Amino acid sequence: MRLRVLIAPSGFKESLGADEVADCIASGVRRAVPDALIHKAPVPDGGEGFAQALVRTVGGTLHDVTVTGPVGEPVAAHFGLLPGADGTGPTAVLEMAAAAGLRHVPRDRRDPLTTTTRGVGELIAAALDAGAARVLVGCGDSGTNDGGAGMAQALGVRLLDEAGEEIGAGGGELARLTSIDLSGLDPRIGTTPIDVACNWANVLTGPRGVARVFGPQKGADEATVARLEEALERYADVIEADLGVDVRTAPGSGASGGLGAGLCALLGARLQPRFDVVTRYLDFDALLSRTDLVITAEGAIDRQSARGKVPAEVARRAALRDIPVLALSGTVGEGVQAALDAGLDAYTSILTRPCALDEALEEAADFLVCSAEQTMRLLLVGRRLAWQETETR
Amino acid sequence: MRLRVLIAPSGFKESLGADEVADCIASGVRRAVPDALIHKAPVPDGGEGFAQALVRTVGGTLHDVTVTGPVGEPVAAHFGLLPGADGTGPTAVLEMAAAAGLRHVPRDRRDPLTTTTRGVGELIAAALDAGAARVLVGCGDSGTNDGGAGMAQALGVRLLDEAGEEIGAGGGELARLTSIDLSGLDPRIGTTPIDVACNWANVLTGPRGVARVFGPQKGADEATVARLEEALERYADVIEADLGVDVRTAPGSGASGGLGAGLCALLGARLQPRFDVVTRYLDFDALLSRTDLVITAEGAIDRQSARGKVPAEVARRAALRDIPVLALSGTVGEGVQAALDAGLDAYTSILTRPCALDEALEEAADFLVCSAEQTMRLLLVGRRLAWQETETR
Repeated sequence: MRLRVLIAPSGFKESLGADEVADCIASGVRRAVPDALIHKAPVPDGGEGFAQALVRTVGGTLHDVTVTGPVGEPVAAHFGLLPGADGTGPTAVLEMAAAAGLRHVPRDRRDPLTTTTRGVGELIAAALDAGAARVLVGCGDSGTNDGGAGMAQALGVRLLDEAGEEIGAGGGELARLTSIDLSGLDPRIGTTPIDVACNWANVLTGPRGVARVFGPQKGADEATVARLEEALERYADVIEADLGVDVRTAPGSGASGGLGAGLCALLGARLQPRFDVVTRYLDFDALLSRTDLVITAEGAIDRQSARGKVPAEVARRAALRDIPVLALSGTVGEGVQAALDAGLDAYTSILTRPCALDEALEEAADFLVCSAEQTMRLLLVGRRLAWQETETR
Repeated sequence: MRLRVLIAPSGFKESLGADEVADCIASGVRRAVPDALIHKAPVPDGGEGFAQALVRTVGGTLHDVTVTGPVGEPVAAHFGLLPGADGTGPTAVLEMAAAAGLRHVPRDRRDPLTTTTRGVGELIAAALDAGAARVLVGCGDSGTNDGGAGMAQALGVRLLDEAGEEIGAGGGELARLTSIDLSGLDPRIGTTPIDVACNWANVLTGPRGVARVFGPQKGADEATVARLEEALERYADVIEADLGVDVRTAPGSGASGGLGAGLCALLGARLQPRFDVVTRYLDFDALLSRTDLVITAEGAIDRQSARGKVPAEVARRAALRDIPVLALSGTVGEGVQAALDAGLDAYTSILTRPCALDEALEEAADFLVCSAEQTMRLLLVGRRLAWQETETR
């Protein structure tokens, strides 16, 4: 009987995309078990490459669109169209990072008080123009902190100051927000379901809010973080007053610099833990029903892994069906036990020698192939021990 | 049925002794398979710790002796006494490094033209005084390059110059050697078998001779290497002329700065590949007959591993009995395939994150425990897959 292996890794940050990771693991597995039946299901995390990954795995088409970038200059973005259910139009899948990702913000212009998600709104509009019957937005890798204000404005929402004038671009402007007028919102939004794949742990305001947690890596100093936090609080106050929704600490409201809050409160989108959405689109449960062994992977496995990251989520689902799960990782950090508790059976680091992080990132592909091969070899040894036991018994 | 695991690692250079490595692996194995039947057989390599390791594993006593060190000052050395076969006296086991190891040569006095193995001869004499019926000398980690001349002189051999005077200490003096007089050799040497555990690849002279290969790490510059090579060639010439033995490129003749050649030609000792000797003393074949799985380890596994290093030698022996062998290693280098060809079933690096060599050496113990645990977990997954297959069949 041929071993059926499901390869469901995350990407390795700053090194390999999830699909590349899956390819490497597959070739390592084949070296050790040439007749393995391999199914690759790389698991995108909502950020960079999300649309492309889903199009590649599920099937569909990718479409280029030029939109307003986070610092106001045009950027080349894209969305994907996945086949819809029978009789419905296609599902558009897009990642916010394509329009407003941190990589579109030059290092010397990293000011989260001014960067905007306007391009995300334009991307949604383009997807609707292309006939999307449903929209899936991936969050992650954002370069903005405007609570999705720019995105909403691009779709016709009016964000007004005390004088009744539209406020400008960027999170800083939200400090002047007084009222919200939804009357101009693109009417297609009301009839098109929008799903948002986001990190469930990100919230809009408070001590674990986006300004404090993510502001610094987007270029905010301490004073800027405080100004942003205040602006986002103001935003939440106005949203609650005008729309009756409390987005302050709703799960996912802080995703992508608060884009989650904007999508949810202003567009009526449904925020969901990214992995729940992704596995539904990948039809993960059906894949598991045809699998003997799951191999997952992520750049680092540690305490965080049990909180909504790919390896632990894959492990949790596989454990429900009593399918063994292994994880390959560049770094095994503190608190990895939590991942084992989540259902992971074993993990291994892919490194083969002492080396600096830079080198590890650069050679991750080779390390992965090699490590996947040896991991499978260890499984074969285990299998051989079992056969010997059977004979002896 | 309980899994019987034989743990047979080498030491990790500059980090952990073979016995410490075995302890770490054992505790990792127990974490994953608490009821495993573990037998530890750390494999010493002839160098530092050789006597102690054999005494610890086989049983016996350790004896302190002060001898002449490699730079002429007294050093605290030791030898072990292992129980002899019925009716015979004990076997003395000693490592040359205890008397003439590189660690006994202060950095500012690293001159292989003058360092001497005299202390090794004194150690052999002390072992004979203690009643040894057989002597086992371990080579490795030497700080000398005198072809064992000092060792032989300490036991009564006269090494004479053109004027018939005894030459002085150190490899440089061998350039003046004209004749060898064995008439004063300690008479017990003739009746006491001497085994030498050495690296079979080390030869006395020529392009792969000790002066060229090891001289530099003992402090020799290019000119010194050339002088040493010439002196050792002279030594070999006189040995051939007076004793009729060609030690120039005999396997092991270059062990420990040519001590192998001296032991063989002047004392009639039997040079042997170190691992053959050690496994005989450890009764390795008997251990293997009671084993389901072997775990070996070494600081680095690479092209060299297949040439007389511990993991490959362990693998070779286990493969003959069809027992699976795994290797844990800090560094997996180029040419590791050779170790797989030798019979190794799988290897894994013990590292769990990108780190410098220093850190890796420092944390090797933790890394080993963790890696042994995960390796066993992988085996358990393999075993589980096998059970599932059995059920399905």
